[in-house]
Amino acid sequence: MHTTTHRGGRASGPRDAEAIFAATLGLLAEGGYDALTVEGAAARSGVNKTTIYRWWRSKDELIGAALVDSRLLEPVVPDTGSLEGDLVALARHIIGLLTGEPTRDLVTAVLAAAGHRPELARHAKVFFADRLSKESPVFARAVQRGELAADADPAALMDLLGGAIWFRLVIRSDTMTPDDAAPLVRTLLSGAARSS
Amino acid sequence: MHTTTHRGGRASGPRDAEAIFAATLGLLAEGGYDALTVEGAAARSGVNKTTIYRWWRSKDELIGAALVDSRLLEPVVPDTGSLEGDLVALARHIIGLLTGEPTRDLVTAVLAAAGHRPELARHAKVFFADRLSKESPVFARAVQRGELAADADPAALMDLLGGAIWFRLVIRSDTMTPDDAAPLVRTLLSGAARSS
Repeated sequence: MHTTTHRGGRASGPRDAEAIFAATLGLLAEGGYDALTVEGAAARSGVNKTTIYRWWRSKDELIGAALVDSRLLEPVVPDTGSLEGDLVALARHIIGLLTGEPTRDLVTAVLAAAGHRPELARHAKVFFADRLSKESPVFARAVQRGELAADADPAALMDLLGGAIWFRLVIRSDTMTPDDAAPLVRTLLSGAARSS
Repeated sequence: MHTTTHRGGRASGPRDAEAIFAATLGLLAEGGYDALTVEGAAARSGVNKTTIYRWWRSKDELIGAALVDSRLLEPVVPDTGSLEGDLVALARHIIGLLTGEPTRDLVTAVLAAAGHRPELARHAKVFFADRLSKESPVFARAVQRGELAADADPAALMDLLGGAIWFRLVIRSDTMTPDDAAPLVRTLLSGAARSS
């Protein structure tokens, strides 16, 4: 559809993509889903709105692309030398995203809107699948080191680890600091049952 | 404030409380937070709206009371004889609530609204604290049986177990059946690390 030569380094999207994504996610965090418009994202990022529409057909498509490709939400892929160290780094990163600004408000805005907009829920699903895929070296290295069984399911582990953090911070509205990461990871790796 | 003699068996609230709660949560599940009105809940439950206002000063207060006291969301307190059995029962119950109707839509509606309404987020927090407190016998019995260390933190365990289910179903929009409960509980109790 788009035939202009790209001057930026992105695989897809205009060369101003990062500025457009930052504007999109910033507006979403500040005003929520309903207040975000393609016009507003264009104005804040200094591009014409036709540039945005050339790449993303709707506000939801733009949000979906921004979630996966913006630098703001770029996942970490720690390589500390141990599974425990890597998972603690991942957990600290998730705690930071869910307690820091503007990512905390961004999560709230997407979650509030996703309940009514199936397309947004689908984008959130793609976002998490993409993250899990990018973090897969953490689990592959743990299997190689013999720390994790070869048939261990990274998705199930991240549901437990990420889920505990999301549940406590976002669903239960409780507090958490990066220091809560280590005990959580220890329970996940060693198990909650009393060792006899 | 209220001096009428109660004919119902509730500690607080009018004798029609369960009908009012069912109407409130049903309307919330069907139409979302904005569509719910005290008038609508009164009409569906067949009481006068002044009856509702005599007990709960606002829509948010009514929702908070309904979350904690309605039969629809009543927690289970399993007593299967083992921690593993009890946690599997709890996990199956949570999976049922988050995949069945009308509770699934109810969760979506509350979550969508809680982002914008701090009072509702506070009610959700009370709801989860109340549940954890009601489920505490499960953990006390496990400590007595020697299955759990005396200093184990039930909240942390439920964050991992409930969090994994919430994260997968509500945040990641993935699927889950009651059969997924047992492997999840086994990982939680035995740990994800490869036993050497």
